[in-house]
Amino acid sequence: MEFTARQISELLSGTITGDPDVRVSRLSKIEEGVPGSLSFLANPKYTEFIYSTRASAVIVGSDFVPEQPVAATLIRVADAYASFAKLLEMYNQISRDKKGIEQPSYVSESASLGNNVYIGAFAYIGHNAIIGDKVKIYPGAYVGDNVTIGSGTTLFAGVKIYSDCSIGSECTLHAGVIIGADGFGFTPASGSYQKVAQIGNVIIEDHVEIGAGTTIDRATLGSTIIRKGVKLDNLIQIAHNVEIGENTVIAAQTGVAGSAKIGRNCMIGGQAGIVGHITVADGTKIAAQSGVGASITEKDQVVQGSPSFAISDYRRTYVVFKKLPDLDKKILELEKSLHELRQSVFPAKES
Amino acid sequence: MEFTARQISELLSGTITGDPDVRVSRLSKIEEGVPGSLSFLANPKYTEFIYSTRASAVIVGSDFVPEQPVAATLIRVADAYASFAKLLEMYNQISRDKKGIEQPSYVSESASLGNNVYIGAFAYIGHNAIIGDKVKIYPGAYVGDNVTIGSGTTLFAGVKIYSDCSIGSECTLHAGVIIGADGFGFTPASGSYQKVAQIGNVIIEDHVEIGAGTTIDRATLGSTIIRKGVKLDNLIQIAHNVEIGENTVIAAQTGVAGSAKIGRNCMIGGQAGIVGHITVADGTKIAAQSGVGASITEKDQVVQGSPSFAISDYRRTYVVFKKLPDLDKKILELEKSLHELRQSVFPAKES
Amino acid sequence: MEFTARQISELLSGTITGDPDVRVSRLSKIEEGVPGSLSFLANPKYTEFIYSTRASAVIVGSDFVPEQPVAATLIRVADAYASFAKLLEMYNQISRDKKGIEQPSYVSESASLGNNVYIGAFAYIGHNAIIGDKVKIYPGAYVGDNVTIGSGTTLFAGVKIYSDCSIGSECTLHAGVIIGADGFGFTPASGSYQKVAQIGNVIIEDHVEIGAGTTIDRATLGSTIIRKGVKLDNLIQIAHNVEIGENTVIAAQTGVAGSAKIGRNCMIGGQAGIVGHITVADGTKIAAQSGVGASITEKDQVVQGSPSFAISDYRRTYVVFKKLPDLDKKILELEKSLHELRQSVFPAKES
Repeated sequence: MEFTARQISELLSGTITGDPDVRVSRLSKIEEGVPGSLSFLANPKYTEFIYSTRASAVIVGSDFVPEQPVAATLIRVADAYASFAKLLEMYNQISRDKKGIEQPSYVSESASLGNNVYIGAFAYIGHNAIIGDKVKIYPGAYVGDNVTIGSGTTLFAGVKIYSDCSIGSECTLHAGVIIGADGFGFTPASGSYQKVAQIGNVIIEDHVEIGAGTTIDRATLGSTIIRKGVKLDNLIQIAHNVEIGENTVIAAQTGVAGSAKIGRNCMIGGQAGIVGHITVADGTKIAAQSGVGASITEKDQVVQGSPSFAISDYRRTYVVFKKLPDLDKKILELEKSLHELRQSVFPAKES
Repeated sequence: MEFTARQISELLSGTITGDPDVRVSRLSKIEEGVPGSLSFLANPKYTEFIYSTRASAVIVGSDFVPEQPVAATLIRVADAYASFAKLLEMYNQISRDKKGIEQPSYVSESASLGNNVYIGAFAYIGHNAIIGDKVKIYPGAYVGDNVTIGSGTTLFAGVKIYSDCSIGSECTLHAGVIIGADGFGFTPASGSYQKVAQIGNVIIEDHVEIGAGTTIDRATLGSTIIRKGVKLDNLIQIAHNVEIGENTVIAAQTGVAGSAKIGRNCMIGGQAGIVGHITVADGTKIAAQSGVGASITEKDQVVQGSPSFAISDYRRTYVVFKKLPDLDKKILELEKSLHELRQSVFPAKES
Repeated sequence: MEFTARQISELLSGTITGDPDVRVSRLSKIEEGVPGSLSFLANPKYTEFIYSTRASAVIVGSDFVPEQPVAATLIRVADAYASFAKLLEMYNQISRDKKGIEQPSYVSESASLGNNVYIGAFAYIGHNAIIGDKVKIYPGAYVGDNVTIGSGTTLFAGVKIYSDCSIGSECTLHAGVIIGADGFGFTPASGSYQKVAQIGNVIIEDHVEIGAGTTIDRATLGSTIIRKGVKLDNLIQIAHNVEIGENTVIAAQTGVAGSAKIGRNCMIGGQAGIVGHITVADGTKIAAQSGVGASITEKDQVVQGSPSFAISDYRRTYVVFKKLPDLDKKILELEKSLHELRQSVFPAKES
């Protein structure tokens, strides 16, 4: 795909400074610009690069005033970052515009397929599955019996969805995501363990994105629920009967244990752990590698540590933690000094 | 599937209070009961819900005495939870009763298939693989050359088993499980690394359950061994030449490094780490996010921390850790007070 | 495969003590030797086993002098471990000598396949993909559009490579590895989040090995880069725009956040975390479960803790941490003793 700066400018309702006919065919960072690439300048600390970039065109804010000559064509817009993000997205939509049903694939006779779907080769659609319009199911993905998938959702290569789960509209599930495997439920039975059958399901609401290799277990009974707008990074573990509130964002390799209920608009760092059967209030922020061991009932708190507590306290504590050998020495010295003082004052007295 | 309360009662050897002909077609939690659902009451703290549940029938203990009118039909049994768990399991057995060989699938001519197996579409069975009776291999699973799988075992969608590994009977491997990838073995060789070939295998004994996305590496030589009755949760990493003892249970995202030997009946929390080449005694309990850095030789210990030590000590330590800024301040004050006292006693003396 | 001790000895340029015609068909540890197996003795602490092993032949150093009768045939070589490792590798090369194109598989008409490739059943090769000579693509692997794979590389079962990524020569990607999923990039937009399209790619250079289930995300713009000779263990998360320097080794379940730049020849333990946008100097060693929260600018440092600092300091600190309840008690006693002393000296004074 090749465009002129004028075409890009029209698309973004911008104005041009420089050659409007210069052609671009790829996007680049401004410091990595090459002839034929289109870049952007939004963060002032990158301003220096606009005078040396080899990019053919650069999107800038409408108020940008160059202090030196600029070789690249400038496309002036209200918000340079937003405009560039829009181009990124269009680029992706075009490059991922898959359609049709590749062979061999397996679609149960009782499954229902919407319009304009993509079913990649070696994809599997089980009995009574309902696939919405414009759904993309990449090669090797597996959709179990009775699963429903809302319109506009993409399952990348090798996603596995167990039977009876429900995926909303406009969701993106990356390669290797596993939805609906059995929750980890066993009861002790004379030295060994008896499995507790897990017959619930997983419900993923609309506009959810789930990163590569993340696993979300089905409920024992009822549903594990991922609310609207949740964003999960890679290799996260969500246990049975968990609920994650709307627009909560969780970074990679975090684990949420069974029946925990996470509020809305939370931000959870990477490699954090949340124990089972607790509640985390709306707006909670949890630092990376923290372990949340008890319910957080007040909204908008920020916690750190394992077990976690208020982040400002944690940080002050950690400063002291790092000088513990010093403290240990000081205590020894205090004991010695006190002993000496006592001896000086009361020479006869044995301590 | 629809049943009357009478049919359920007969199945569970129970007795009925209320309408024996009411029909149920699904299972629910008592607080989420809907008309047509069957629920149970085992935990006294849920008793209040039996008076308001919309479930059509509820399994209760034989000694349950209602204190208000109950709309639902009651099915009285000796152990309400155990009876309900039995129903859950029957439900699962029916809903997962897959049989036959779907096409296209790939079964090597030299492989041997038992009776009543299920081979899903796009499943792959390698050379000389031996698949026992009633084994279920879901779509997209891969069974390498010379692998043996015992009777009654289920491999869910996309399980990958490398060549030469052995899986016992009545095991469940969830989607995305990877058995027998190369152990992580490299020797330094003039600045870079030389791979140490990993030619051992993995042996999984009977009645083992392995959660989604868990990886178990093959031994360098010999075998990585998962003993009878072990239960592993999701996204766990078991390195080469590890041995996990009978009926040990490990929660999600824990890692066990090379050649570690874990005893029987251990319980290991989530996101824990166990270093290589150590031994963990039978009955050890390891708290979530702990790091076990040395062998635990005494049985039935409980540890926490990274590096871990006795949990009761860890907890007392952590209480003090949280007030470290206070301690720091107290030490400063002690130094000051001691100095002042010394000055008061010996005014001429310089400290 | 069966060989005589003489054949093995010739292969390794060794000399024989004992029966040169004894036949071996498998490799074993010396303490697990069985008739027909070939073992080795390199570590002196295993010397005792050579007098009792049931292995038919044992590779030993040329300077080995038995102190008791040895039943096994000895094959004497300059370096017993290196010779045995060489045999392990040959064994693996033979047992993994897959060739040809199994059916059904999917190879786009616009893809280009090198000579002597293996394409397993249910593998998928996208548009314009370029597959080098001797590449092995195991069953169910997915190679997206425009991907290039260098000669001699192996993708084990179920590896997923998104479009536009580039894999070097002589790499090994184990089952379940996911290369090129979208980086985790969202911008807040009135309470919910707007996805930032990720249109960069992943570049894996030559001689890289990647463990089972590891995920490496594509860059937002530009490339996530894994340099020559890097070795990654299982279930590792590498975020978008990260760069890992040559010959760096990372153990299982570690996570590296976005745009972090890790130097060459680093060694990173398991379950460690590295925050985004920092630089880690060449030769850094990071202990398991550590959290690196700031750039490490000096080479060859060793760090531990979360947040991490110099490992020698961490260890001294942790020694004191473990006796915190004692310290707490000592401080209380000091306060009390000081108070008493002050009272003794100045009886009238109130504290």
